[in-house]
Amino acid sequence: MKKLLSFSLLLFVAFNNFGQSSQKKFPKNIIFLIGDGMGVSQIYAGLTLNKGELALERIRHIGFHKNQSSDNYVTDSAAGATAFSIGQKTYNGAIGVDATQMAHPTLLEMAEKKGLATGLVSTADITDATPAAFIAHQIKRNMHDEIAKDFLKTDVDIVVGGGRKSFDQRKDGQNLLDSLRAKKYQVVESDAEMNSIKQGKFVYLYAPGDPKKIIEGRGDVLLDASKKSFEILSKNKKGFFVMIEGGQIDWGGHANDANYAATEMVDFNKTIEAALNFAEKDKETLVVITADHETGGMALLGGDMAKGEIKASFITKGHTGQMVPVFAFGPGSEAFQGIYPNTAIFDKMKAALRLSQK
Amino acid sequence: MKKLLSFSLLLFVAFNNFGQSSQKKFPKNIIFLIGDGMGVSQIYAGLTLNKGELALERIRHIGFHKNQSSDNYVTDSAAGATAFSIGQKTYNGAIGVDATQMAHPTLLEMAEKKGLATGLVSTADITDATPAAFIAHQIKRNMHDEIAKDFLKTDVDIVVGGGRKSFDQRKDGQNLLDSLRAKKYQVVESDAEMNSIKQGKFVYLYAPGDPKKIIEGRGDVLLDASKKSFEILSKNKKGFFVMIEGGQIDWGGHANDANYAATEMVDFNKTIEAALNFAEKDKETLVVITADHETGGMALLGGDMAKGEIKASFITKGHTGQMVPVFAFGPGSEAFQGIYPNTAIFDKMKAALRLSQK
Repeated sequence: MKKLLSFSLLLFVAFNNFGQSSQKKFPKNIIFLIGDGMGVSQIYAGLTLNKGELALERIRHIGFHKNQSSDNYVTDSAAGATAFSIGQKTYNGAIGVDATQMAHPTLLEMAEKKGLATGLVSTADITDATPAAFIAHQIKRNMHDEIAKDFLKTDVDIVVGGGRKSFDQRKDGQNLLDSLRAKKYQVVESDAEMNSIKQGKFVYLYAPGDPKKIIEGRGDVLLDASKKSFEILSKNKKGFFVMIEGGQIDWGGHANDANYAATEMVDFNKTIEAALNFAEKDKETLVVITADHETGGMALLGGDMAKGEIKASFITKGHTGQMVPVFAFGPGSEAFQGIYPNTAIFDKMKAALRLSQK
Repeated sequence: MKKLLSFSLLLFVAFNNFGQSSQKKFPKNIIFLIGDGMGVSQIYAGLTLNKGELALERIRHIGFHKNQSSDNYVTDSAAGATAFSIGQKTYNGAIGVDATQMAHPTLLEMAEKKGLATGLVSTADITDATPAAFIAHQIKRNMHDEIAKDFLKTDVDIVVGGGRKSFDQRKDGQNLLDSLRAKKYQVVESDAEMNSIKQGKFVYLYAPGDPKKIIEGRGDVLLDASKKSFEILSKNKKGFFVMIEGGQIDWGGHANDANYAATEMVDFNKTIEAALNFAEKDKETLVVITADHETGGMALLGGDMAKGEIKASFITKGHTGQMVPVFAFGPGSEAFQGIYPNTAIFDKMKAALRLSQK
């Protein structure tokens, strides 16, 4: 009798571990990494420049998303990020609003409402389309002053990016940094100051406009801000959602500058690596890595893995329409396999965090 | 006591099915589909032309392979297919030989030796690099007459492709079709004749040189030959290995002709669909779909999913070096997730068919 009971338990344990990993099915946290303009060629340019290695190689669950916007075969970053943030196909230029210009709650807002800690980190201006779509609701992406004001309507815990002028050099004369301080945000002014934060909400707008390129001395602000966000946000017992953007891979594409795109990819890779390290240790974090679209129609015409050299070319100064890859790691990552519309990424992340449950 | 035994069995069954599908872990058969020059953009051009649908969307296990050859960042189809067929990085132009020009047994030859039925089907010349690398061992891809002669050294069951002239209009005056007949091959001369075959080995070389484009009336020969290969080869109790090439996606890329590449992709899609249907029913077949490399640096600059229209452009008349996707379906397909060298596809298929076991 006792032996059979042991046998039952043995079978239970053996087959439970055989089929599934020991990870939970639902994650507590999501780290959502968007490489703006990061198509297959940008990834591979980064891998080559990085002498044949990328952190993405640690990931097994891979998919592709179809990124057409509601009014164009070729999406822009606004419609692309809004598809992720509200789960609706919308027109190019839309920030957190659907094709009829109606606002919908974003994933970040839903997470916040459910008690999760939240963050937005970027190497672009924080009011630029990609981060904006997670926190703002405006009918046009170039309404930077209005988008900045939307940050005050939420309780996002961590905000790191460029574009400070939309907060402190505004047409309406307001200083939103003061308003943020009044809302108990620590407004920090240097990497060192950010790195020394131990707890609480903070905003670090590290450039008045566009942040520097990595090759022009931006430093490790993306990596440092990301690691700080994992450290601070994970103190929240209910979990966290953070969107981190490698924003200038896209700018390299628009400039048709292969070295610019590839060096930004390598910089983004450091943050991907940090996110995977955090998730691997934490075991309750889902990491999703994708792009909104590819930029430039980049292709690799030559290179040298051993030396870390690339030879690449571009077709367009704009975006392209082909599907872009999705990489997912951690509990719930299986759901990101296959080919699906970009809006399904919202659905999958929402389901993973059980945000539809009250 | 009896109850506990039932409980044990219940747990066993429940958790065995929970983690794993009911498919066997090792496949009996492999259908290996190579879309020559089929990068992400070619796939998406086909998907768009096909009004937003492709059979690839049924697949969940996706990976990427790094396709650099031993002497060039940008591979050709010979080194690319040889990486798949013998599992060695080799020089551009090599057919079934390694970087030192040494011949190694191919996956098809190993399968044949183990008693599996085998086949090669293509929309290109059957002596062209991709099919050739699975059956021939020659130091240069342009040695078509020598490659054709290598077909006689094997007992491949089914051979369908273009390039008949390397068999019956040879410099050495031999007629290899007669030699094949002497080896008990049925040498058929029309689609109808092929479609009526019920059993046995057959060769169908349906064009003297390059087969027609699909838009110029090639017809359903790829689909029909593929379905016939599944029907005939699956009669073998020990299983089968068949390599099927959509060879002209690459030719569309070399011609920088988006409609050519996309229509060939849609034609290839029909065969992918048939392979998935066969595998879904059969449950013992692993289907692996990939490209050797991307051709043309194609990018989609516009399109219309509803109307099935594409607007695309190319960067080069040659190949590009970025990684290309791998799609896998059926037992053993999990192994094809992630990012790995093209040679790993040989290793994974060899392991799946347990070809290293005597």
